Amino acid sequence: MTEFGQHDRSLEELFADAALPAIDDAGVGVSEIDAFYFGNAMGGMTENETHLAPALATHLGMQGIPCQRFEDACATSSNAFKHAVEAVEAGRHDIVLVGGVERCTPETGLDTGVMTRVFASASHGQYEQPTGLTFPGVFALLTKRHMHEYGTTEAQLAEIAVKNHSHGQYNPHAHFGRDATVEDVLESPIVADPFHLMDCCPFSDGASAVVVAAPDRAESFSSTPVDVTGIGHRTDAVPLADKADLTETRAARQASTRAYKQANITADAVDFAEVHDCFTGAEVLATEALGLLKDGKGGPAAAAGRTRVDGEIPVNPSGGLKAKGHPIGATGTAQIVELTTQLRGDAGKRQIGDASTALAHNLGGDAATTIVTVMEAHA
Amino acid sequence: MTEFGQHDRSLEELFADAALPAIDDAGVGVSEIDAFYFGNAMGGMTENETHLAPALATHLGMQGIPCQRFEDACATSSNAFKHAVEAVEAGRHDIVLVGGVERCTPETGLDTGVMTRVFASASHGQYEQPTGLTFPGVFALLTKRHMHEYGTTEAQLAEIAVKNHSHGQYNPHAHFGRDATVEDVLESPIVADPFHLMDCCPFSDGASAVVVAAPDRAESFSSTPVDVTGIGHRTDAVPLADKADLTETRAARQASTRAYKQANITADAVDFAEVHDCFTGAEVLATEALGLLKDGKGGPAAAAGRTRVDGEIPVNPSGGLKAKGHPIGATGTAQIVELTTQLRGDAGKRQIGDASTALAHNLGGDAATTIVTVMEAHA
Repeated sequence: MTEFGQHDRSLEELFADAALPAIDDAGVGVSEIDAFYFGNAMGGMTENETHLAPALATHLGMQGIPCQRFEDACATSSNAFKHAVEAVEAGRHDIVLVGGVERCTPETGLDTGVMTRVFASASHGQYEQPTGLTFPGVFALLTKRHMHEYGTTEAQLAEIAVKNHSHGQYNPHAHFGRDATVEDVLESPIVADPFHLMDCCPFSDGASAVVVAAPDRAESFSSTPVDVTGIGHRTDAVPLADKADLTETRAARQASTRAYKQANITADAVDFAEVHDCFTGAEVLATEALGLLKDGKGGPAAAAGRTRVDGEIPVNPSGGLKAKGHPIGATGTAQIVELTTQLRGDAGKRQIGDASTALAHNLGGDAATTIVTVMEAHA
Repeated sequence: MTEFGQHDRSLEELFADAALPAIDDAGVGVSEIDAFYFGNAMGGMTENETHLAPALATHLGMQGIPCQRFEDACATSSNAFKHAVEAVEAGRHDIVLVGGVERCTPETGLDTGVMTRVFASASHGQYEQPTGLTFPGVFALLTKRHMHEYGTTEAQLAEIAVKNHSHGQYNPHAHFGRDATVEDVLESPIVADPFHLMDCCPFSDGASAVVVAAPDRAESFSSTPVDVTGIGHRTDAVPLADKADLTETRAARQASTRAYKQANITADAVDFAEVHDCFTGAEVLATEALGLLKDGKGGPAAAAGRTRVDGEIPVNPSGGLKAKGHPIGATGTAQIVELTTQLRGDAGKRQIGDASTALAHNLGGDAATTIVTVMEAHA
């Protein structure tokens, strides 16, 4: 993956900066790649660029192969990854490049106000956009309800921001990373109650890519492969008002149940997780829906340090969306990059001891599209 | 499919007008559908609507199932269809809804000038858009070269427009349909030499949908199933200047070779074809690349009436993009709808006698993404 932050390179150039190292790391030749599964969420709106997959494939020297672009809001490249894994599993392709790219910062020439409207395109056009509901508001509504039901506090949410900022300083690709305090978070401006500025992930530019290969091919490559052992994908209702339960995030429960079943594990087996912390409250909801913590315990567990990189169930060792950054279409495969790095034991100062089973949780829109991926160290 | 033309309904409503009749026609219940493969190319740019698949699924009563949106320019919903067929073939899903929707006319609130820029987003952002190259120009360049190499004439191109307009008048869902003459076409204003206005497909609003089911399930439904026997998908280089050969449309040759091989047929077995005639010249290139006519014979064959609905190799009995209309994300599955209707013998006045093997050819961007589908009457 590229560093997440601000980039002034074109989408083609930025994606190549992730894809070519991924191909090199896998030890395959560009001409051996037989399909391209690509994620980009907003290139049409931000830069008038659609139909990007063939252009990127040509730029990388892969012209001719089947290319497909996915868009499922912030879960875009996880969905591309799911389809790539399924295609390889079905024997349709042997070696596939998967990845995503996005430019979201003022480097695109669009200011934060316009970009906020662009992001809001993933909320409901008829019922939510006209009311001015943007994504800080969506997750604030979910989190406020969680505070009401379980007593979660703003200070507990702030502890998540502090943790993820702390993790981010050990990730050389992270947008942010610093030692922050709960007071820093609580003193930062309110964006959407209960979220302060430091509860929110940033707009980032960036790209990420991975190579997916059939097991018999993967073992012949030079680097250390990791195994994808389960993927679950479910959606919840859109708009938000149609959901049966606001704090449940049902799609995450259904998707993780399926992913665990496919991997033949339970949540207890997960050594660490990368979860979709677009806002601190989203990390609380995710850790509970995934069964990593009991319902209502997401806030207290974070405050007690249980989800720190040296805690019993580390969450977002990369820094998460909060500190690593969130270039929409690149976020899903960036989670896969972190799982791969950790399972290989290559994560340096943020390495989680002897991690052998890991989970990625990526969601799109109103906690609607949810994709949960289980990966394990190669036996 | 809905009528293609101008609609003032929302994307959700318009898509439901295609999807609910498709589900009803298949004889399945909404709750039996276990995945949704969806195509939309421009909703972000035209109406600030992305992440549409979960919203449409909720609107249709299908919330919870895996949803995925594809975007591959004008080949968008053919790519969704390919993935749906592959998922069913792999046993991952049993009954899948596939379809696309688009609103492209001034009913979106955007004028033709803005929409021309939106469409141009599918050309190369760095090398083509800055030169003002929009899609009439892209296909005019390809066609001019074909005229130079093979002697194809403007009058031959006009014969294709006349044929497709004629076919369109027998399709109740078509945007246009009339008896026109070669003179009408040649006297219409030049858009991009050699294309006159009547050589060009219109901007249309519309939706289309089909239900894909495993063979053992399909036979238990009430309506007449048809078989998908081959799908080929390849891409050519983007930008146009990187192509090895302008008139070859290489991706169409490679994709059809693969589709024929999968279906275990040759081009001779094809009883009729729906091809991507965004411009009359594109139909010439397609009929040759697919092996339906020899290279250089696309124009003369059309002029001789060989590709009319009562000719030896009917092309675009639906009226094609030219007369049926071209709501980008809905076009791919609309071709599948026409193949299904014809193979069932339900096409009324445009029915092709005893058609048992049919082909759909859908392309995106600079003749880049190309998907060829072979379907056959159910034995």
